[in-house]
Amino acid sequence: MNIDTLIHAKWIIPVEPKNTVHENYSVAIKDGKIEAILPTDKARAKFTATEEHNLGNHALIPGLVNAHTHAAMNLFRGLADDLPLMDWLNNHIWPAETKWVNPDFVKDGTEIAIAEMIRSGTTCFNDMYFFPDQTAEVCTHVGMRVVVGLILIDFPTAWAKDADEYIFKGEQVHDTYRHDPLINTAFAPHAPYTVSDEPLKRISVIAEELDIPIHMHIHETAFEVEQSIELHGKRPLQRLSELGLLSPRMLAVHMTQLEKAEIKELAKLSVSVVHCAESNLKLASGFCPVGELVKAGVNVCLGTDSAASNNDLDMLGEMRTAALLAKGVSNNSTCLDAHTTLKMATLNGAKALGLNDTIGSLKKGKQADIVAIDLNQLETAPLYDPVSQIVYSANRQQVSDVWIAGKQLLKDRELTNMEYSKLMEKAKEWEVKIKNE
Amino acid sequence: MNIDTLIHAKWIIPVEPKNTVHENYSVAIKDGKIEAILPTDKARAKFTATEEHNLGNHALIPGLVNAHTHAAMNLFRGLADDLPLMDWLNNHIWPAETKWVNPDFVKDGTEIAIAEMIRSGTTCFNDMYFFPDQTAEVCTHVGMRVVVGLILIDFPTAWAKDADEYIFKGEQVHDTYRHDPLINTAFAPHAPYTVSDEPLKRISVIAEELDIPIHMHIHETAFEVEQSIELHGKRPLQRLSELGLLSPRMLAVHMTQLEKAEIKELAKLSVSVVHCAESNLKLASGFCPVGELVKAGVNVCLGTDSAASNNDLDMLGEMRTAALLAKGVSNNSTCLDAHTTLKMATLNGAKALGLNDTIGSLKKGKQADIVAIDLNQLETAPLYDPVSQIVYSANRQQVSDVWIAGKQLLKDRELTNMEYSKLMEKAKEWEVKIKNE
Repeated sequence: MNIDTLIHAKWIIPVEPKNTVHENYSVAIKDGKIEAILPTDKARAKFTATEEHNLGNHALIPGLVNAHTHAAMNLFRGLADDLPLMDWLNNHIWPAETKWVNPDFVKDGTEIAIAEMIRSGTTCFNDMYFFPDQTAEVCTHVGMRVVVGLILIDFPTAWAKDADEYIFKGEQVHDTYRHDPLINTAFAPHAPYTVSDEPLKRISVIAEELDIPIHMHIHETAFEVEQSIELHGKRPLQRLSELGLLSPRMLAVHMTQLEKAEIKELAKLSVSVVHCAESNLKLASGFCPVGELVKAGVNVCLGTDSAASNNDLDMLGEMRTAALLAKGVSNNSTCLDAHTTLKMATLNGAKALGLNDTIGSLKKGKQADIVAIDLNQLETAPLYDPVSQIVYSANRQQVSDVWIAGKQLLKDRELTNMEYSKLMEKAKEWEVKIKNE
Repeated sequence: MNIDTLIHAKWIIPVEPKNTVHENYSVAIKDGKIEAILPTDKARAKFTATEEHNLGNHALIPGLVNAHTHAAMNLFRGLADDLPLMDWLNNHIWPAETKWVNPDFVKDGTEIAIAEMIRSGTTCFNDMYFFPDQTAEVCTHVGMRVVVGLILIDFPTAWAKDADEYIFKGEQVHDTYRHDPLINTAFAPHAPYTVSDEPLKRISVIAEELDIPIHMHIHETAFEVEQSIELHGKRPLQRLSELGLLSPRMLAVHMTQLEKAEIKELAKLSVSVVHCAESNLKLASGFCPVGELVKAGVNVCLGTDSAASNNDLDMLGEMRTAALLAKGVSNNSTCLDAHTTLKMATLNGAKALGLNDTIGSLKKGKQADIVAIDLNQLETAPLYDPVSQIVYSANRQQVSDVWIAGKQLLKDRELTNMEYSKLMEKAKEWEVKIKNE
């Protein structure tokens, strides 16, 4: 049978079925989709491919899904570190955004972020930022898979002046890309403390109509919860529940403040939780109880948050931190194993975004979003378990090749359709501008 | 003036004076020592060097000091993950050690570990393992700086059968290397729960005589503390205090269980604490209260622990985790900034080991243990603060060049005096043997 691409690898870790590692297997790709996953000798006999890759030292995993980021903020990486969240936000990040955020900023910042993501094995990101039209455009241009956040916040920004305009412009972006194979959309109301009831109610209704997720920072800090009790007489989750927002559509990001009953409720309502381990640590926001959430059956996925609060978009590193931190926080070193962590960074993210029929695992019929990791390096030797090595020892530099919808975007560490030196120049230009403001 | 080496760099971060970043500076090296640190234009005028390096995109930092590891255990990397400490130790690691540890294991494992350390910017490690003679020999051969732990444990091992033999053999190792410029020694009684009073008392006396540190796991878990109260009627720290072990010689590793009075006591007695953030997380051992220790004036340094419980020896990654975790645990995002974290990984480690007159900062007269990090990469761009980028964004692959005592051991990512392919072969051989036991 003639196909487009055949990748032979030492290991294939499909994520589903659970805890599976195929040795000396191959993936066959046709029309951007996975045609088959089978032993290499059988693959060679069965398929004739236009392109063939022999990755005898590598593990193939599904492309990583970064379930929460603000890609364009790469341009603020390291601008204001070691500060408390509200100081960081009110006195550094928001003023910098007021000054700098415009379509060019978003375009350049997002392009640089995409390059970083591809270089570290991320093939889909769930974004929340201003000018989502720019984000979508860059992704289409580059071939990156994205869920573009249709942002909404109570105060006026360069993107929109009020709820009406935010929603109107958001719907326009949704309309423009509704049939695009790589671009998806989600509503992205910023946070309970920055979005009032009326627009939230509207979003809840329109999200149903358009059949898209809702992506929101929730219970990031104890302060946020206290403030809500003071203003609304209830915790943010309770308020969102009453507004009809807690459903399988909801990606609740951060969730460091959770009571036992709330965890049960999240499981019952099939709300997904996006854990941003490194950002929560860096801003001392509190600990997301990942061990308890997993035990309760909540769909937990992983996000980096932005490079301004992380300070990278490295999902391999995020997996490592999340796996380690969950053990420490739960006081139970068995609460989150390497396989489960990899599933969080792939299939669980896809599920949260409503994309689990399309991506998130290596399976016949799914999109060929595939990442190859070279495990034949000193830092991952000896090798007793490739999944342990990926989660606990490998680093982003060991990501050698990346395919999205069957198209190769990283080839032996080289970006295939972005000019690395140009991206560096752009980053430098913004650095100089922002530094010398 | 004629010198050996001149390194010109975009940034030099000497660690002392505090919070200093020199731009467009150079380091002059003569006879293995730092001769001067000065602006590049002045350096070019003043010095004629046999070797000159232009690192215009790089930051120079002092070589990283890994203040706690078991280097040879690299051969067990990923052998038994996601297990509780005591299960991991009793049912996996100790049986594997009984089966495999011999001089060859230590020699090969340590050599592989040193290669990993050099490739990630570590120039000195404080080791605790059996056959310290092999560890010392490999380090001499390779040119690695080490503090070799003269191990002691109540039970017999392949290295020694009882306290007398452990101490005798340890003293022999000390004697052999007492004048070696790269090899230092420390007593390394394993832990309060594995070493009884008599040998500890002897060690306390001999350490004074030989003027060397004492390196010991202490208060790693709550269980250890409970057990001690049951057996000895007191907490381990109290027992060690009564045995005369708490002094500036002591490197207390882990310290996840600390009461306020104990923290005060550690500060008063100038005990150093070695924080192993990733190992503590992975084994769910508890949280070392780094923020409080720093505030109390305790000398806190960083260690990776072994690759069996980490699972790497990457001090850049360890800095990042330690900086993030301290914020999370203390609920204070300002408690440990990037500069302080870098100091922990360099000068504080040197101080704990009694080597702060020799290494730990870039300063005239100190040994030229220097690491260059290439910051001109997408993952560290834009760049507003090189120290933030090193701690929060850079990864081990950005370590380009490493010098120990003026000798270049890593040159543009290539090991200069170890054969990478041979090391990989050795790792593979052990993997096959251990896997198929």
